[in-house]
Amino acid sequence: MSARAPDPPGEHLPDAEAALAALADRMRSGVAHDAAFVGIYSGGAWLADRLAKLLPGNHPVGHLDVSFYRDDYAKKGLKAGARRSALPFDVAGSRIVLIDDVLYTGRSTRAAINELFDYGRPASIELAVLVDRGGRELPIEPAYTGARVACARTLNIVLTRGDDGRLALSVEPAGA
Amino acid sequence: MSARAPDPPGEHLPDAEAALAALADRMRSGVAHDAAFVGIYSGGAWLADRLAKLLPGNHPVGHLDVSFYRDDYAKKGLKAGARRSALPFDVAGSRIVLIDDVLYTGRSTRAAINELFDYGRPASIELAVLVDRGGRELPIEPAYTGARVACARTLNIVLTRGDDGRLALSVEPAGA
Repeated sequence: MSARAPDPPGEHLPDAEAALAALADRMRSGVAHDAAFVGIYSGGAWLADRLAKLLPGNHPVGHLDVSFYRDDYAKKGLKAGARRSALPFDVAGSRIVLIDDVLYTGRSTRAAINELFDYGRPASIELAVLVDRGGRELPIEPAYTGARVACARTLNIVLTRGDDGRLALSVEPAGA
Repeated sequence: MSARAPDPPGEHLPDAEAALAALADRMRSGVAHDAAFVGIYSGGAWLADRLAKLLPGNHPVGHLDVSFYRDDYAKKGLKAGARRSALPFDVAGSRIVLIDDVLYTGRSTRAAINELFDYGRPASIELAVLVDRGGRELPIEPAYTGARVACARTLNIVLTRGDDGRLALSVEPAGA
């Protein structure tokens, strides 16, 4: 048997563009034609913009910055470069698809739902995520998932966007 | 062919005691031995008491009244006989199983999660429900379900408890 180096972390991450295509396929048959797409900064906002162009229908796009709403805000504080939320449609009565890049504990999703309700009472909120890495700490589940991956608890999965607009997934040490 | 009267509403409801036994079986292999059981008034509170006796381990039991926390509180107001919440353990850092009788839109679950976080930041919250009737309006899903039933939107499914302590499911017109 030949010696074999361990896989570098992130070796088994899916291609982000392929996961986005899979996510769009799953949303195509389920999402209301007038559903608003609300992306969580920063990765979810990129995804919301892309999905609104990929999917049929007329989807208003909004962005949410949940830094102030997370339950660990007191511990983590506000990251440098935190941005304001922008929801250019009436949240009250809307059917909303909340979009995030990586679903893990569910705490960011809860924060986003609470922020949405501060704007108004939506008719419904569905969740769509590019990557579900498991490890939930709240009873939150997505209606639409691009890819499922296993990932060590010591790592964060990060979505980045190149100058050409292409999305990519990578890992970095948790707590970085 | 003989004439046949339409099924009375609720004909296909499961037996509540059988659904409770199924729910307990599913929780037995998944729930942490020290998880706290928090039941949502009134049906979930009865279930939490019963499940704490049925399952191995040492499960502190708490009760939550979410009347003040629901997003339709302004519309529905406080029901007669609303009771106070009682959580006789430290919520911060606890593993909690939130227990409800009927899961429908998910709005009561969201209210209960928010109320729990007002007491402290739990390590985790899982959801256990006696009956899942579908129709979700928020991305909430249970880890443990006793039974799944289809039910007309014009009906509520109601859990009642007899003088002998036995639980029963029935339906009533929605908005009653």
